Amino acid sequence: MILILFVLGFHSTFLLSQPADSLIIENLFTSALRSTIADKNLEKLCTEAPHRIAGSVGSAKAIEILFKQLKEMHPDTLYLQEVLTKPWERGDKEIAFLSSRNSGKLSLEALSLGGSIGTGQSGIQSQIIEIQSFDDLKKLGTKKVKGKIIFYNYAMDPGLFNPGEAYRKASFQRFNGAIEAAKYGAVGIVIRSLSNNLSRFPHTGIMRYGDTIPKIPAIAISTIDAEKVSYLLKKDPDLEIHFKTNCKSLADVKSYNIIAEIRGYEKANEIITVGGHTDCWDVGEGANDDGVGCIQSMEVLRLFKQLKIKTKRTLRVVLFIDEEMNQLGAKKYASSVKEKGEIIYAAMESDSGAGVARGFGCSTTDDKFQSFQALAKYFEPYGITHFYKGGGGVDIDQLNQFGVPLLNLHPDSQRYFDYHHSANDTFDKISHREMQIGSAAMAAMIFLIDEHDVF
Amino acid sequence: MILILFVLGFHSTFLLSQPADSLIIENLFTSALRSTIADKNLEKLCTEAPHRIAGSVGSAKAIEILFKQLKEMHPDTLYLQEVLTKPWERGDKEIAFLSSRNSGKLSLEALSLGGSIGTGQSGIQSQIIEIQSFDDLKKLGTKKVKGKIIFYNYAMDPGLFNPGEAYRKASFQRFNGAIEAAKYGAVGIVIRSLSNNLSRFPHTGIMRYGDTIPKIPAIAISTIDAEKVSYLLKKDPDLEIHFKTNCKSLADVKSYNIIAEIRGYEKANEIITVGGHTDCWDVGEGANDDGVGCIQSMEVLRLFKQLKIKTKRTLRVVLFIDEEMNQLGAKKYASSVKEKGEIIYAAMESDSGAGVARGFGCSTTDDKFQSFQALAKYFEPYGITHFYKGGGGVDIDQLNQFGVPLLNLHPDSQRYFDYHHSANDTFDKISHREMQIGSAAMAAMIFLIDEHDVF
Repeated sequence: MILILFVLGFHSTFLLSQPADSLIIENLFTSALRSTIADKNLEKLCTEAPHRIAGSVGSAKAIEILFKQLKEMHPDTLYLQEVLTKPWERGDKEIAFLSSRNSGKLSLEALSLGGSIGTGQSGIQSQIIEIQSFDDLKKLGTKKVKGKIIFYNYAMDPGLFNPGEAYRKASFQRFNGAIEAAKYGAVGIVIRSLSNNLSRFPHTGIMRYGDTIPKIPAIAISTIDAEKVSYLLKKDPDLEIHFKTNCKSLADVKSYNIIAEIRGYEKANEIITVGGHTDCWDVGEGANDDGVGCIQSMEVLRLFKQLKIKTKRTLRVVLFIDEEMNQLGAKKYASSVKEKGEIIYAAMESDSGAGVARGFGCSTTDDKFQSFQALAKYFEPYGITHFYKGGGGVDIDQLNQFGVPLLNLHPDSQRYFDYHHSANDTFDKISHREMQIGSAAMAAMIFLIDEHDVF
Repeated sequence: MILILFVLGFHSTFLLSQPADSLIIENLFTSALRSTIADKNLEKLCTEAPHRIAGSVGSAKAIEILFKQLKEMHPDTLYLQEVLTKPWERGDKEIAFLSSRNSGKLSLEALSLGGSIGTGQSGIQSQIIEIQSFDDLKKLGTKKVKGKIIFYNYAMDPGLFNPGEAYRKASFQRFNGAIEAAKYGAVGIVIRSLSNNLSRFPHTGIMRYGDTIPKIPAIAISTIDAEKVSYLLKKDPDLEIHFKTNCKSLADVKSYNIIAEIRGYEKANEIITVGGHTDCWDVGEGANDDGVGCIQSMEVLRLFKQLKIKTKRTLRVVLFIDEEMNQLGAKKYASSVKEKGEIIYAAMESDSGAGVARGFGCSTTDDKFQSFQALAKYFEPYGITHFYKGGGGVDIDQLNQFGVPLLNLHPDSQRYFDYHHSANDTFDKISHREMQIGSAAMAAMIFLIDEHDVF
């Protein structure tokens, strides 16, 4: 209040809106940081519903927990949107080892890649051939690859400041490694885990098959094991690898997106969507990916209710199912928007972990981007300074077809690939303060784009 | 190289220096992030020399380890600067419990504050009185305080975005709590640990006594225990506390600052000091406070050597002893500078933990501050955007008397008070990438202030 009066005394009333907005934003940060609700909600999700790949028991439990937590926040509307998911399950723990005449068996930490077929009960065994790229495959040719197991060992470059850039550069082996190796007759692939640190955790993630190309089983081994295999291969190029995986696809299972709304007071038919995804890989607790994104999205609603912040437009929290595998939740949401002819004013996603908030990405027209960027000044006191073109996220990208401005929270990502898609992504890795700075930032951004009619 | 040619093609040669500098800075970041030396050096320090309060066995071991690590970096000069320290030791683990007629004994997690006297073998026991401020003490007066144990329970406000601000606001109880309580006849004090999270770790730190005021023993209890004590006091105001501590001051012990230099190629008599402190509290491993600061300062030297970066001025790494207790290392260094009539061109300190680098503080004249701030553009690609007036640190502040520009790395601090001065400050909390972004940032800043003659 003192701040408002001070400004009124010295400036024109034109400026009134800025300090008032700044105070609202300050309240959002203070309230988010003081509350322990988000921390408790995330702990419950991680502890009671880990391993929640779409269609699994864990996933059903997660939806139940998050639905109840949202209910306690008293939204105007709360419902489930049915989504038919195509589950995949890992089965028994993978067995993988190097087999050499000299040194016997050497066990490796392995995880099947998401969507991979299993090897069958007897597993597969063959010579292991290390490569770095699809070009290497081409050079080897069918003669040298046929019947072998291809080991993609292209490391995420730790020298790149942006870990996401290193991830994108290295992800070809996980996404398309099986397709490319199968073209030359390989019987299986092993990839180096996509992580920029040396650790014993293997990291899984989705892989693809071609319609007309033989499906071969695919596993990831830990970065430490990848180093080890590479080292041993230099000594003994005839080294063989054996692995046995039990993963398989299952019959369709009914699941849900969770949707909660607070009705806007002026333009209730215009909707601002904010969300994360409730599913996560079937190892670890999905704390960073994307428990935090769900909790933060819910916090936006809770903070608005707690601080009695009314928005002109309707706030809609959407917690999507099946981001990791087939994006069936996101597709269902987008088709429902189309069917109902809804106006989505903007959509925001949080799906990059619980690092401290550094900025926001935004995909929109150049004009509107400038208005968006003009909001940066409100975030300076909170160290949130990186406002860049090209926002979005796997779930909200489905709304791109309707020309919806897409935003994403941009948290610090230096630790993200220590956890991503691995058993290491657990609740104890989350800093409550860092998560809540993200919650407050998201709430502040949604408040501002609504209040200032940015789009 | 492509970048330089591109710029030459389209701009005047005036601009040449900026891309060239930018490339050098990019190399510093890439090299720091790719190297594992800093990680191994820190692990060795934390594992082999934890509990290294000045004058202790741990402290001597730390100096030995860091000296060797510096030697392997082949500085032009490397020597020890003798410092006479005044050691204090904790002795046996503290015993503390609440004592109530109704519920018996309730054990508390406690640590003596640094510099506190011990209670003697029989410990002390008395009624415990909870207060929030020195004003509360005044209101109670001698009649109600005499013979009692004062419990300062002023919490660090989690709602403040800047944890350092919350720390400063709450630190009166640790620094001066014993002096003020003793004025009213209290026989001991208990403080709520200075941490903005609820945890079971007590946090220690230095406390003061007055020359003419009775010395009374002082302990910190964990924030969770502080909440518990406060809760129970509401039910039973006559609750007593018992604690026994064995800490004491010892005879002076010879110790050392470590000093390593690379000679400047043009103005070798002008020195840029960069450092951290080798001592840490006698619990935990001093990973964040300040193992990281030492390792980062050494990395500046190592990176310059590795990348063959020559500076006009002499780079001097100073690893100070005794920051936590009496700053005897810093005082010795400053007096040696004075004695030798050395020119310290600038001094930088890293002593705020291993969070990802967010900016730099700088204390200098307004003119020079503007030149310093103009360097911000070089750091933008690394998310380092916060350049503020008022830099320094407990160790380099001793150089303020000579008008030396004082700088400090400003890392993200949201997690810092989870670890600070507690047994929770261990190696496993450090992200190698975050630490190395700090190392590279420090090296880049020192390169730039030298190259551009900023001060």
